Amino acid sequence: MGTATAWPLTDNGHTVRLIGTHLDRHIIESCIEQRYHPKLKRQLPEDIRPYYVEDIAQALDGADVIVSGVNSLGVHWIGRTIGPHLRSGQSIIAVTKGLEAAEDGTLRILPDVLYDELPEGVRDEVKLAAIGGPCIAGELAGRRQSCVVFGSRDGKAAEHMAAIFRTPYYHVWTTTDLVGLETCAALKNGYTLGVGLAAGLLEREGGVDAAGAHMHNLAAVVFAQSCTEIERMLQLMGSTRAFAYWLPGAGDLFVTVQGGRSMRLGKLMGQGHSYEEAREIMEEETLEAAFIVQQMGKALPNLTAQGLIAPDDFPLMRALVDTVVHEQPIDLPLDAFAHGGI
Amino acid sequence: MGTATAWPLTDNGHTVRLIGTHLDRHIIESCIEQRYHPKLKRQLPEDIRPYYVEDIAQALDGADVIVSGVNSLGVHWIGRTIGPHLRSGQSIIAVTKGLEAAEDGTLRILPDVLYDELPEGVRDEVKLAAIGGPCIAGELAGRRQSCVVFGSRDGKAAEHMAAIFRTPYYHVWTTTDLVGLETCAALKNGYTLGVGLAAGLLEREGGVDAAGAHMHNLAAVVFAQSCTEIERMLQLMGSTRAFAYWLPGAGDLFVTVQGGRSMRLGKLMGQGHSYEEAREIMEEETLEAAFIVQQMGKALPNLTAQGLIAPDDFPLMRALVDTVVHEQPIDLPLDAFAHGGI
Repeated sequence: MGTATAWPLTDNGHTVRLIGTHLDRHIIESCIEQRYHPKLKRQLPEDIRPYYVEDIAQALDGADVIVSGVNSLGVHWIGRTIGPHLRSGQSIIAVTKGLEAAEDGTLRILPDVLYDELPEGVRDEVKLAAIGGPCIAGELAGRRQSCVVFGSRDGKAAEHMAAIFRTPYYHVWTTTDLVGLETCAALKNGYTLGVGLAAGLLEREGGVDAAGAHMHNLAAVVFAQSCTEIERMLQLMGSTRAFAYWLPGAGDLFVTVQGGRSMRLGKLMGQGHSYEEAREIMEEETLEAAFIVQQMGKALPNLTAQGLIAPDDFPLMRALVDTVVHEQPIDLPLDAFAHGGI
Repeated sequence: MGTATAWPLTDNGHTVRLIGTHLDRHIIESCIEQRYHPKLKRQLPEDIRPYYVEDIAQALDGADVIVSGVNSLGVHWIGRTIGPHLRSGQSIIAVTKGLEAAEDGTLRILPDVLYDELPEGVRDEVKLAAIGGPCIAGELAGRRQSCVVFGSRDGKAAEHMAAIFRTPYYHVWTTTDLVGLETCAALKNGYTLGVGLAAGLLEREGGVDAAGAHMHNLAAVVFAQSCTEIERMLQLMGSTRAFAYWLPGAGDLFVTVQGGRSMRLGKLMGQGHSYEEAREIMEEETLEAAFIVQQMGKALPNLTAQGLIAPDDFPLMRALVDTVVHEQPIDLPLDAFAHGGI
């Protein structure tokens, strides 16, 4: 996803320096030698300059905007890695989606986790932002119509970055509700796992029946409950509740359930695999969905103990926690859904 | 869908009399002679008794609950047809989804249209209700997990009916916000047409590209804007805004975009067919999606003239009206989406 943003950027006349992590050496090698990105399966636009991570100082030198494309687990690493090279006035915009629960269960958005990793002298001198909304990287790099939301607590910074990225196919809204935006972006991965369960349960119960019946009704219930719980969480965080049914919530969830790792994990677990088994089957993959469910497994008891939510609030996420964290068989408590929410 | 409700009803020990309209003679014939429903592709449960429409008086005699499964266009007909046979204390629950615009553009929900068609002596003596939420008929008849909402202005009547229908696979919530429920149920057909456009536009632009890019991002934007406009309409009608992101809104829209006529119509129009052309291609089908867009084509100018909405509110539905009613080429005004809503 980080790389995909290079398409609108170079189309707008900017030069993009593409830095791979130590896990991406083969990608950068291909980008340098063949000008071909093997994951996006596309030739690179001319104005992309690929760099190995050793050359990060050179790559970051003079950059106006730094796009961070590492996953949730890499946010600490990237903070420590780019920190020493940051200059006042630079902006960092993250495509990373995630919420991290502190030891006491308090939820924190990743831009704030990143902030903590940056050197004290410079972290208040850079602008931090994040991208939310429904955007599959391969489609953006294919210049397909995409609509996203840039969030930053500094509204001017968000608008400034949006103006740099906007093209006729990359439509950018802005918000100062960075917390709400990141909350949606993070939760949707966990809830996608939930929607994916239906496809696995269908297989476990013998697949599409002779009359052609799938389990779309069940998937839709999980989808709706997901939006409802996202709205509830936005409300709790004092965030923009309308995000639940706009691009960051329903929109991003909709695009994410079209395929990908979180759906695959859900399907495997729906088939009856434990989380550990599913993780083994998918061993090469980063499981953002499991990460956010684990974080919520720390946060929900904390919120409940504080009296901020009732023990039966977030019944779907609690069921996901029971399955992913506590290794219990899947049990979607349909009759508890929307309890108190409507 | 009307027939599918016979599965939970007979599972609960009720007898169901299944009446076909004059268009359904071949279905009823098959149900009588082979105990097989050709559209649902299933053998009928024992306690279903099929009837031709001529025998409607006999079929309705002593019925506690009448399930109306006719489409939006048939609601006037069914009102006039069952009217003379109704008895005080009976309940009518509609699976029909639709809003109808009066001559002056005022929107009315179908249970109210039905009410007007019923004889004056009895219409205040029967309970009117409707079913919303994500439920594909073939899945319900396959006893797949399904969650729906029964709406009636009479909360006790809604609860009474819910208790009759509820099974371990058919989960029923109730609401007295019948208007909000029906508004969601109707609008979702029109908005499904909008989501379907993306699949057609993809084909028009050469299909999935060499790197595997679909147009899911665009479909997701339309999905999100649909939820946002449904929320806006609920707000305008003084209805339950949370429906937008719960079963009646996002949930029902999600299940409807999994396939069916409204998606097919959208895809055909996305490919470049005019509405008239698409209608010819689909000539055997009832186009609920077009019906609701046409109704909104009457209602939106009315709401705008009254000052209840701004001329740029509901940009997606206005674009659908332009295409379906005014035969203009498709032009999704992405940059106008969510204008003012967020």
